[in-house]
Amino acid sequence: MMLGRVSLVGAGPGDPELWTLRAVRHLQDADLVLYDALVDASTLRRFTNAQCFCVGKRAGRESVRQETIHRLMIRAARAGKRVVRLKGGDPFVFGRGAEEAMALAMSGIPFEVVPGVSSAIAAPEVAGIPVTHRGAVSGFLVLSGHSTESFEEGLKALHANALTLVVLMGLGRRAELAAMLVAHGWKPETPAAIVCAATTPDEWVWTGTLSAIGETDPPTGAAGVMIFGEAVRLRDTLNAAEENKRAQELTDLRIYGFTN
Amino acid sequence: MMLGRVSLVGAGPGDPELWTLRAVRHLQDADLVLYDALVDASTLRRFTNAQCFCVGKRAGRESVRQETIHRLMIRAARAGKRVVRLKGGDPFVFGRGAEEAMALAMSGIPFEVVPGVSSAIAAPEVAGIPVTHRGAVSGFLVLSGHSTESFEEGLKALHANALTLVVLMGLGRRAELAAMLVAHGWKPETPAAIVCAATTPDEWVWTGTLSAIGETDPPTGAAGVMIFGEAVRLRDTLNAAEENKRAQELTDLRIYGFTN
Repeated sequence: MMLGRVSLVGAGPGDPELWTLRAVRHLQDADLVLYDALVDASTLRRFTNAQCFCVGKRAGRESVRQETIHRLMIRAARAGKRVVRLKGGDPFVFGRGAEEAMALAMSGIPFEVVPGVSSAIAAPEVAGIPVTHRGAVSGFLVLSGHSTESFEEGLKALHANALTLVVLMGLGRRAELAAMLVAHGWKPETPAAIVCAATTPDEWVWTGTLSAIGETDPPTGAAGVMIFGEAVRLRDTLNAAEENKRAQELTDLRIYGFTN
Repeated sequence: MMLGRVSLVGAGPGDPELWTLRAVRHLQDADLVLYDALVDASTLRRFTNAQCFCVGKRAGRESVRQETIHRLMIRAARAGKRVVRLKGGDPFVFGRGAEEAMALAMSGIPFEVVPGVSSAIAAPEVAGIPVTHRGAVSGFLVLSGHSTESFEEGLKALHANALTLVVLMGLGRRAELAAMLVAHGWKPETPAAIVCAATTPDEWVWTGTLSAIGETDPPTGAAGVMIFGEAVRLRDTLNAAEENKRAQELTDLRIYGFTN
């Protein structure tokens, strides 16, 4: 029996013209689409002939329970279907996308994550508010206000250096930057990762700890992003899906990203 | 004489399949494309017949000076050309996109910003690292490591609550969250904004201060993002371009976003 697959696809902030070309390709190839309430159903119809179900909250109706969404995805993939789970914004910025990926990985379902335009950056942007500006605003912080508890948790994490820290454009001075983080109270054993040339054929990934990042040997010339924090540990779980894919030799399936 | 226009377009992390449909439309319509070294020239050729110039750093060659990029854009727009400034990632996440927007606004050139998939989120994502995960990672922080000075500046800003703070999914409890921020040392007069239904026809924007956000009356039911920090002030400058556009009645030009 042929196993299907699931794509967790980011639909961006609202306007379907901000969907990516890959999102469109996955929608065109899909047998089943499970979409959030943020996504416009009539637009969806123009891009796919798949069965489409709204699993998000809609006026006056409860949203489908998270466990039900997991079960629907897993069951359809086991029946050989190509499933698109279309989520507002980016799949891994809140909205429980990481939980969905974990559920798939732990069930041995091959899956792919298709990044989307995140509202965290795009909503300010279209209102004329750049989240960074040279000489004036040197970074940005994204928290969830889903509940006062989650918000308080975020503010506390901020002071405990327990958020995910993403550093762009600093790969060449990684040893120096790591030392500065330790001087600012970050633990040397904080999980750390480097991703070079992300989403290209030259993609290169390293994981380890903050204290070891200075001794790495990433490819020269490639743009690299550094990541620090507990989030790096999640990679091991999510990688299980990649091994599962290899075992099954689903050669027609381009799971990009979860490779090394 | 007809004035041209400039689109600041995000090209995403690397793979052209992560370009948005709007990015592709702007490339197809362009007369001139000024692109970063991150963007693959041969791929670009498949999407546009425009004149294409690389203005980014390339092996062994200096990048074009920032002021020169501004001058090239402004001169071409004044000559009636449709210019695409194609930037890696998202235009407003580092990389001097906000500076380019400011230069255009101050020169009275109509422009549009087309959000892209940011490497800050997508690079970790494709490596299997979700920047947020419910119950484990409650937010994320993005800094530039462009220089040790800029990095140090970011770490200091973190403790001074001087970064841009973006809050997703908390609009309903905005008064409570604002009070929590003040309790955590944020100044009541910190500039603040709300953007609801970003990039859709129902887009709604409010700006003011942290202390006033509780008394706002945003549309019910719409997803809303809150923004806190000095970045909010940049909106006034960027809005100048919108007024300029109206004055010229360039009806064929869809500048979305910089409206209220």
